[in-house]
Amino acid sequence: MSKPTPLSGFPEYLPAQRMIEQNLIERIRSTFELYGFAPLETRAVEPMDQLLRKGETSKEVYVLRRLQEDPNAEKDDNALGLHFDLTVPFARFVLENSGKLQFPFRRYQIQKVWRGERPQEGRYREFLQADIDVVDRDNLPFHYDTEMPLVVGDALRSLPIPPATILVNNRKVCEGFYRGLGLEDPDEVLRTVDKLDKIGPVKVAELLVAKGASAAQAEACLQLAQISTSDASFVDRVRKLGVDNDLLTEGLEELARVVETANEHAPGLIRAELKIARGLDYYTGTVYETELQGYERYGSICSGGRYENLASSGNERFPGVGISIGVSRILGLLFGRDALTISRSVPTTVVVALPQEDLRVRCDQIARSLRSRRISTEVAPTAAKFGKQIRFAERRGIPYVWFPGADGEPDTIKDIRSGEQVEADAATWEPPAQDRTPLVQGV
Amino acid sequence: MSKPTPLSGFPEYLPAQRMIEQNLIERIRSTFELYGFAPLETRAVEPMDQLLRKGETSKEVYVLRRLQEDPNAEKDDNALGLHFDLTVPFARFVLENSGKLQFPFRRYQIQKVWRGERPQEGRYREFLQADIDVVDRDNLPFHYDTEMPLVVGDALRSLPIPPATILVNNRKVCEGFYRGLGLEDPDEVLRTVDKLDKIGPVKVAELLVAKGASAAQAEACLQLAQISTSDASFVDRVRKLGVDNDLLTEGLEELARVVETANEHAPGLIRAELKIARGLDYYTGTVYETELQGYERYGSICSGGRYENLASSGNERFPGVGISIGVSRILGLLFGRDALTISRSVPTTVVVALPQEDLRVRCDQIARSLRSRRISTEVAPTAAKFGKQIRFAERRGIPYVWFPGADGEPDTIKDIRSGEQVEADAATWEPPAQDRTPLVQGV
Repeated sequence: MSKPTPLSGFPEYLPAQRMIEQNLIERIRSTFELYGFAPLETRAVEPMDQLLRKGETSKEVYVLRRLQEDPNAEKDDNALGLHFDLTVPFARFVLENSGKLQFPFRRYQIQKVWRGERPQEGRYREFLQADIDVVDRDNLPFHYDTEMPLVVGDALRSLPIPPATILVNNRKVCEGFYRGLGLEDPDEVLRTVDKLDKIGPVKVAELLVAKGASAAQAEACLQLAQISTSDASFVDRVRKLGVDNDLLTEGLEELARVVETANEHAPGLIRAELKIARGLDYYTGTVYETELQGYERYGSICSGGRYENLASSGNERFPGVGISIGVSRILGLLFGRDALTISRSVPTTVVVALPQEDLRVRCDQIARSLRSRRISTEVAPTAAKFGKQIRFAERRGIPYVWFPGADGEPDTIKDIRSGEQVEADAATWEPPAQDRTPLVQGV
Repeated sequence: MSKPTPLSGFPEYLPAQRMIEQNLIERIRSTFELYGFAPLETRAVEPMDQLLRKGETSKEVYVLRRLQEDPNAEKDDNALGLHFDLTVPFARFVLENSGKLQFPFRRYQIQKVWRGERPQEGRYREFLQADIDVVDRDNLPFHYDTEMPLVVGDALRSLPIPPATILVNNRKVCEGFYRGLGLEDPDEVLRTVDKLDKIGPVKVAELLVAKGASAAQAEACLQLAQISTSDASFVDRVRKLGVDNDLLTEGLEELARVVETANEHAPGLIRAELKIARGLDYYTGTVYETELQGYERYGSICSGGRYENLASSGNERFPGVGISIGVSRILGLLFGRDALTISRSVPTTVVVALPQEDLRVRCDQIARSLRSRRISTEVAPTAAKFGKQIRFAERRGIPYVWFPGADGEPDTIKDIRSGEQVEADAATWEPPAQDRTPLVQGV
């Protein structure tokens, strides 16, 4: 067959990069579990009516068809599609299993998602997300909105990546403010203001006026969007704009609690950023985005918010709040600048050199002994001169080569970085702690 | 919306079972890494011509279509399908990246695969596999065939599941034997003998005769298939059948090496079972299947073999040997008999009780202090009487409830299993090691 070529939008990593990815996933997972989030994995597919249940046929979804399906069969009402996020499957899972779950239900979910984008757009069509959500029956206490950024802040700080700032806003602030101004379609205003970074304030004001706002109303909307503070002082700045509305007041109180709680536990992590809107229309209160220092222009690496009405069925209603780390997005940015390194391209700590093929049993026993103490070990693939065996290790970044002693001589082990070679006993030798597993570092 | 229902063939676990699955995956992964296998993850999709490159249009594949695709467009030659195993994507990956990999290349891959089965068949349509393979350029030393069962034997022994026996055979033994008997289509004979467990020896003999074998040839094939030994004594038993053939001799030597190496390092793990054939036609030598004690009639939980010609392009050829653990299959069998348990349904070790809402900041600080020592901690969702907070922990199997002391009294911690309650300091308290993470056990 001809040599295969990559598929655009489906990133694949060589083992060294995959080890970095796994290392990051483990750290994220470990932080989520420290906060008591339980793991969940949902199937990759959902019925199409679930994926499009808001009637959004514009969604970029991959639809599945069985190769063996009768092509003349009626159009399948139960068609399946690949999930495009982890929130829709989670909402479905909660409804399906509500009788078996304990509420409030805290879960994390680290999985691939797929978007059926046109190939030429150069966007990810397969990528990894790491989500946490808390849902409860009927009502979810507000303090969970304050917890989300702390969990994600801890998770991101555990990674060898630049510092992150979580930007937070509250839909109630925007909607209440727009209503207080007398604007009647706050969703439309929000969607317009959301374009601020793309088209600038002049064009946003023009659009707002074109949609029926007065020049003064448009100006007030822009002034609100420009407020950005790292503490609760945004409340006074909003108040000074002179708009009065109950929903606005409620939103300001909520947003202040999120910011104050974060400053209590993790100073410098959060900023109230009143232009943040989040496109998805199921958010009803707090919304989060996240900037990675030095990569601000690439957009949010971690987003989410509160949704009062995501999952409901009959009399059951499950409000939630959640946040999603874009793992592939972070890796893509950092790999693109060679900003993540790993000390070797295999898990192996020791290669046992094989002087001649008939010593393989002995070399296998040495390896077995080392592995029994959790030291990752390979035996050389073929008998060869020691120089060749050292090059085998060097090319992979394996730090140690074990040499079986000839004719009753003791075994020796060589640190191929320093060249130091010492006597060693396979039953007792231990590597320094930092050599046990490959070391992942940011730059 | 109406309450969703499960999709047959797409198993989903509640968090407790997902924690068991994760625990098993971690143990498998850890064993693979101990042997120096590097992680790899390939995209979920392959071009259809890759998936069907042997012209097998009968494969149960899910084909993808973009929802936004122009329905009037020409049939897409670059159609994508979901991979149905991890071997085809791995072979493609090796060809695509051969210039960037170090050979021999040892990789493991733990991923979901999909089969586009008809829904009513009740088979898995999505399931998890854990594969290891070693590939080399041009030639792969035979000793890797002897290593595969040792790695998988260690991995399976690390799991809280019944003991497994790896059944091993060699295609060269069968083909050489059939040829030595004078049978001219050894593949056809192999496919027929492969039905032994399903239709029994009488029917197999009838089929062989119907396809042109003499009664004596058919009988010899059955006698070969009935040979099963836990050491290399199968060689003599085959020799006594009086067939002479060079390929047979080569196959017997290889198979004896696999069995003898296993008995050297892992007595009782392996059995030479000369009826094992493996349906897939790319195997060229050693083949493996695995029986789980008490679940023999459900078939192999872990299979693989040697393939000389799986990946090749132009002048490049990459022979390999590999084996695949059916993780979903093992879990399905054991969950079906409630044979795997976990001590709690959340990762949480401690719940901090919340006497009244205005103490939340203090309770959050206690949680923060415990988490700083890697103790998984939640704060109670709402202020409530202590009895209710204990029930919150009990329902989830969380072992400890932390009570903040009132009015300058010291904090206390209660082990809700024993009822024992003692004074504790959040800055120093440590749980017993066995309570740090949920305990997974076989039955």
